[in-house]
Amino acid sequence: MLDPAGLSPHEARALFREGLATPTSGWCSGWTQANLIALPKDYAYDFLLFAQRNPKPCPVLDVTEPGETSASLFAGDLRTDLPAYWIYEDGERVAEVTDVRSRWRGDLVCFLIGCSFTFEAALMEAGVPVRHIEAGTNVPMYLTDRECRPAGRMSGPMVVSMRPVPAGLVPHAVRITARYPAVHGAPVHVGDPSALGVADLSRPDFGDPVEVRAGELPVFWACGVTPQAAVARARPPFAIGHAPGHMAVTDARDAAYLGAVQ
Amino acid sequence: MLDPAGLSPHEARALFREGLATPTSGWCSGWTQANLIALPKDYAYDFLLFAQRNPKPCPVLDVTEPGETSASLFAGDLRTDLPAYWIYEDGERVAEVTDVRSRWRGDLVCFLIGCSFTFEAALMEAGVPVRHIEAGTNVPMYLTDRECRPAGRMSGPMVVSMRPVPAGLVPHAVRITARYPAVHGAPVHVGDPSALGVADLSRPDFGDPVEVRAGELPVFWACGVTPQAAVARARPPFAIGHAPGHMAVTDARDAAYLGAVQ
Repeated sequence: MLDPAGLSPHEARALFREGLATPTSGWCSGWTQANLIALPKDYAYDFLLFAQRNPKPCPVLDVTEPGETSASLFAGDLRTDLPAYWIYEDGERVAEVTDVRSRWRGDLVCFLIGCSFTFEAALMEAGVPVRHIEAGTNVPMYLTDRECRPAGRMSGPMVVSMRPVPAGLVPHAVRITARYPAVHGAPVHVGDPSALGVADLSRPDFGDPVEVRAGELPVFWACGVTPQAAVARARPPFAIGHAPGHMAVTDARDAAYLGAVQ
Repeated sequence: MLDPAGLSPHEARALFREGLATPTSGWCSGWTQANLIALPKDYAYDFLLFAQRNPKPCPVLDVTEPGETSASLFAGDLRTDLPAYWIYEDGERVAEVTDVRSRWRGDLVCFLIGCSFTFEAALMEAGVPVRHIEAGTNVPMYLTDRECRPAGRMSGPMVVSMRPVPAGLVPHAVRITARYPAVHGAPVHVGDPSALGVADLSRPDFGDPVEVRAGELPVFWACGVTPQAAVARARPPFAIGHAPGHMAVTDARDAAYLGAVQ
């Protein structure tokens, strides 16, 4: 019986490289997961500045040299070792694949962006339930009506992830996640989806819906799918992202992102 | 009698625009100060990536569009409203001036980098003395033998500022400054200058020496002059920095940088 939480990053990446396509929430407990966006070098400055201007949704953990297929924080192969990828041409999503070697380009710069899965173990240890892990589904994610600060050709709405939290535990959830600023930190909103322009929680733009039970509030965190919403707006000729929820499992410990950025 | 601590950023910038050249430590209490490095657009990506890879010395607070002379955090004129500037040609410092309008270029991107002056008021409020403010001199800064992580054409040593702290107050100094990660945060070293490759505290590379008294330890913080050490190494055709200690007084409150980034 596979115990995803107990796997090492090396072991998990080997499974993904062999073709296993699964959301990674709850996998490799204690190891940091990251969002991927790979862009042609020509777009790298605009994107890095976009991330600097929007650190809540886009906290940059690592950046590769053009064409590089591994990263300081990721000893695997960025082209094969994520569970699934989305490929964009001119801002349109044209494919979901588990291997991007045939589409790789020497001018691609890979950005690894912090992921809120990093603080889910800390939430659960503190007694805050994480519904999508209990349900074995992908976290629900939503496009909002909050515009990011643009940078050059990059602009777009903030994407958020949502976890239902019992009202009495909301302060715990805020306090605990605020300790992880490099992986989205404290929530951006608690309670009212319409305040973010989210019309229907049961229809997420990415991932799977989860039940919000009586006595629970929907809590929203900035999400590292935001760069892909910017790709859809900016329409660069080519880009590769992770399939939402199907993250890069890095070789960095969650604890490395506990507390101040550094 | 001028009370520098009580001035608004607007008032201080007007004095600097009129030609007053002075270190700004202790000025405009409660308002964030920033380091400046202006580079040709061609170098902007390499520098922004250098900053991303070296967030302790190079925490980016704001970035302008090419040629812009003000910034989101700085409503003044970046060409005149700092007390003094250093001009670099091919990595060589060729002039110190109080106005760079005659040398301005339309392709210059200005980076505002967090400055440790931001947490000095918090140190003093907690009873940690700040010697260079007491003495009315510039903070001492040193080139170290710690190499930054390079990025493209940018590389160089970390620069540090030093404040002598009574040994019993060192934990306070660490704890208080750690709360400001966007303005260098906790010290990088306590106690032994030679561990940083600093041979003689009485001969700082930038700024003025201060007395380290019996019972005090020298405490070292990463410093936003580090980009200028990288300019000296990388030798871009042109660059402008602030004269060390002569900072950009921004329109952001110190409190905005208290706690986690964002």
